[in-house]
Amino acid sequence: MSQKPSIPKGTRDFGQQEMAERNYIFDTIKSVFRTFGYSQIDTPAMENLSTLLGKYGEEGDKLLFRILNSGDAFGKVDFDAYKDSEGAVNSVALSKEVCEKGLRYDLTVPFARYVVQHQNEISFPFKRFQIQPVWRADRPQKGRYREFYQCDVDVIGSKSQVNELELVQIVDRVFGLLGINVLVKINNRKVLTGFAEISGFPDKVVDITVAIDKLDKIGLDAVEEEMRAKGLTDGAIAVIEQILKLSGTTSEKIAAMRSLMNGGSASGLVSETGLKGLDELEELFGLIEAAGVSRPVEIDLSLARGLNYYTGAIFEVKALDFAIGSICGGGRYDNLTGVFGLPDMSGVGISFGADRIYDVLKGLDKFPKDLKSSTTLLFANMGPAEMRYILPVAKALRERGVAVEVYPDSTKLKKQFDYADRKCIPFLSITGENEIQAGKVNIKNLVSGEQEAFDKADTESIMEFLK
Amino acid sequence: MSQKPSIPKGTRDFGQQEMAERNYIFDTIKSVFRTFGYSQIDTPAMENLSTLLGKYGEEGDKLLFRILNSGDAFGKVDFDAYKDSEGAVNSVALSKEVCEKGLRYDLTVPFARYVVQHQNEISFPFKRFQIQPVWRADRPQKGRYREFYQCDVDVIGSKSQVNELELVQIVDRVFGLLGINVLVKINNRKVLTGFAEISGFPDKVVDITVAIDKLDKIGLDAVEEEMRAKGLTDGAIAVIEQILKLSGTTSEKIAAMRSLMNGGSASGLVSETGLKGLDELEELFGLIEAAGVSRPVEIDLSLARGLNYYTGAIFEVKALDFAIGSICGGGRYDNLTGVFGLPDMSGVGISFGADRIYDVLKGLDKFPKDLKSSTTLLFANMGPAEMRYILPVAKALRERGVAVEVYPDSTKLKKQFDYADRKCIPFLSITGENEIQAGKVNIKNLVSGEQEAFDKADTESIMEFLK
Repeated sequence: MSQKPSIPKGTRDFGQQEMAERNYIFDTIKSVFRTFGYSQIDTPAMENLSTLLGKYGEEGDKLLFRILNSGDAFGKVDFDAYKDSEGAVNSVALSKEVCEKGLRYDLTVPFARYVVQHQNEISFPFKRFQIQPVWRADRPQKGRYREFYQCDVDVIGSKSQVNELELVQIVDRVFGLLGINVLVKINNRKVLTGFAEISGFPDKVVDITVAIDKLDKIGLDAVEEEMRAKGLTDGAIAVIEQILKLSGTTSEKIAAMRSLMNGGSASGLVSETGLKGLDELEELFGLIEAAGVSRPVEIDLSLARGLNYYTGAIFEVKALDFAIGSICGGGRYDNLTGVFGLPDMSGVGISFGADRIYDVLKGLDKFPKDLKSSTTLLFANMGPAEMRYILPVAKALRERGVAVEVYPDSTKLKKQFDYADRKCIPFLSITGENEIQAGKVNIKNLVSGEQEAFDKADTESIMEFLK
Repeated sequence: MSQKPSIPKGTRDFGQQEMAERNYIFDTIKSVFRTFGYSQIDTPAMENLSTLLGKYGEEGDKLLFRILNSGDAFGKVDFDAYKDSEGAVNSVALSKEVCEKGLRYDLTVPFARYVVQHQNEISFPFKRFQIQPVWRADRPQKGRYREFYQCDVDVIGSKSQVNELELVQIVDRVFGLLGINVLVKINNRKVLTGFAEISGFPDKVVDITVAIDKLDKIGLDAVEEEMRAKGLTDGAIAVIEQILKLSGTTSEKIAAMRSLMNGGSASGLVSETGLKGLDELEELFGLIEAAGVSRPVEIDLSLARGLNYYTGAIFEVKALDFAIGSICGGGRYDNLTGVFGLPDMSGVGISFGADRIYDVLKGLDKFPKDLKSSTTLLFANMGPAEMRYILPVAKALRERGVAVEVYPDSTKLKKQFDYADRKCIPFLSITGENEIQAGKVNIKNLVSGEQEAFDKADTESIMEFLK
């Protein structure tokens, strides 16, 4: 009857230490979100598949975890209807009949669904954050899990660049508090559209974007080769090269791009959309300067983040001292809720990658040292009478917020010491007959070796000693 | 393409206000757990079905949400093998082939699985708490959901009654902090076994327990009728009636039961197990008295909680001022991890019913009043120049922990006022040209009407005003 226990691949248990570390990350992020007036919502783990399907592309649909309908799920299924002439079963079609629900794949689609469903209760602009697990049937590998937490902050219902600024400020503050050196990279989807328009290939914006997204990895020559393969002419590529080669300060780059988008490129074409994107970038950088942001922020024209729904600003945050890729990213989307029947709702948001931030803090040894133990003081168990004597002392300390344990079993002191040691409990009280007769409680600092006896009711002095 | 969004029945969205209220409950409970040295763990939402099946009875198995295997789930299924001679499909058997994983049904089985899987990393006695959602394919109805949070605290690896005491102290402290008047009821499974043994029907303990569990609802006569229907003799029923009719203080009841269990009942039979249970009860009540517990705690011999795995103490907490049934309960189990290959691990735990506690606090209007708004101060947006002027002021306040919003759009003041009003933001700053020229920031208390101008860098005075 006994079975060796395990958990599904790609999932994790989090023990005491990892939970303390993860809570440190989440609590830091939440505290910053709150100072900017964002409020937390939770949505269900299960969504209707009709909400999820078609939102993440064909590949995403395959990665959804589907939940078998409860009750007699297969009772009315005509299996033959799902077989082709060779007798092969169409699993995708059949799964649609027997599964109505799926596990949440990200927090963005549930957020859009939430906004539309609750639009009459919401005050816009609606500033929300959400920290919950998501599930993807991806092939598990190092650093990629089938259940992982996302940590999203979005504002919807306002087109102002002040929102973009706030997200940059949030990033600045979060990584400042966590002690991680980062570079904040910003781009604008309208500027990318501008590239395509002044190159003369306005319909190739995705191809161009996908190609220049690889600039860091494969270099300019290979990027140009890829654009050529996608049908761009040498003239068009020359225009894009003009932009990619721009250097100088942020304002110099914006000024140079403005000139190119305004007919000054080799093609002589003008892009109104591109100019609008430059206006947005310029306003955002002006606000960043006015607000005072401590971490470096720069324009990165190769930043595209592959996601097709961004329509304005695009963000990415890189850790500077640890090779791990992006640890935070996001952007503006103008029509996220349209698919659920609420058009023209512009929003902007970013997502913090909790697992990667965890890896960075771990790798750089930046977690606070005092996360180790949750318990401050252990009362050793010296027997039933001693137990009754110390219980009110433990109670008074707990009510003052001190984490106190009372060893439950009256067992060898060696075992109790080992327990304190393994749990890194810094203070131990061994209170026996002599102390009871004197009305005292004896407490030892296990780190310094210092030891002191206190009146049992003198909670203040005990708390002072435990500091 | 547009679709009216909805969520699966029995699931819920939690908006800003509900989240603040729920977090208040969870944070209160967590803070108490921590002062007793319990540490948090998280387990995955998905468990292998082999871990879950057979742990909750046949009815429980039906209520598990099963997750369709990813990839080509049905590709290799021989559907005919699952049809009976009439062509009816055996959904249960088929679902086992196409679903390997299920959603967690409670936190107890995952905890047992966790303890066995990680036994070499754990320091015993292991004190853990866990606050996570669970899923059950129950028929949704008022107050019953398909996704809901459980909030469990358990200690495993110690048989001492000090653990039971701590759980009672935790209950005492949690409901004290939440301001809910409760009655803590305690029973002991060994005493129930003793009932059966001295009645002469040691194998009828479940029948007897199920019957007396209904004492409150149906009365003594009907309980006796039910026991008679289950085959108990009048003599046996007379013995049980002797016990159920005991009155007096806790120590009087225990003394009277001790006499009955020791051969003093109408049957003259002795129950060693019953006497052991009385020893445990006596020790626990002695510890409760020594520790000083503020809320009433009493023995309730009719308390059984139906669950077959309790082997010692059984707990239940009732709200005294609100009709809602049990809001917290649990007990001791001697062999929770045996099914996963780790025998003889005794543990004791309780579970707080977050949804019911929420209903009680809501019904009695006991939520703190200041949970309403997360934002303290809104800076109205008076235009781009004013915006740049107030950004550093907002930044300084946020870095000191004040929740500050800057209205993102430069729109009509009426609209901005409405926003502050709907979000219950108590302070508003309207800082325009005059203030900028004077280097001031103007802040109004929207509740009292009081208004004051501050030097823009005088963060201290502003914070004082916002208190």
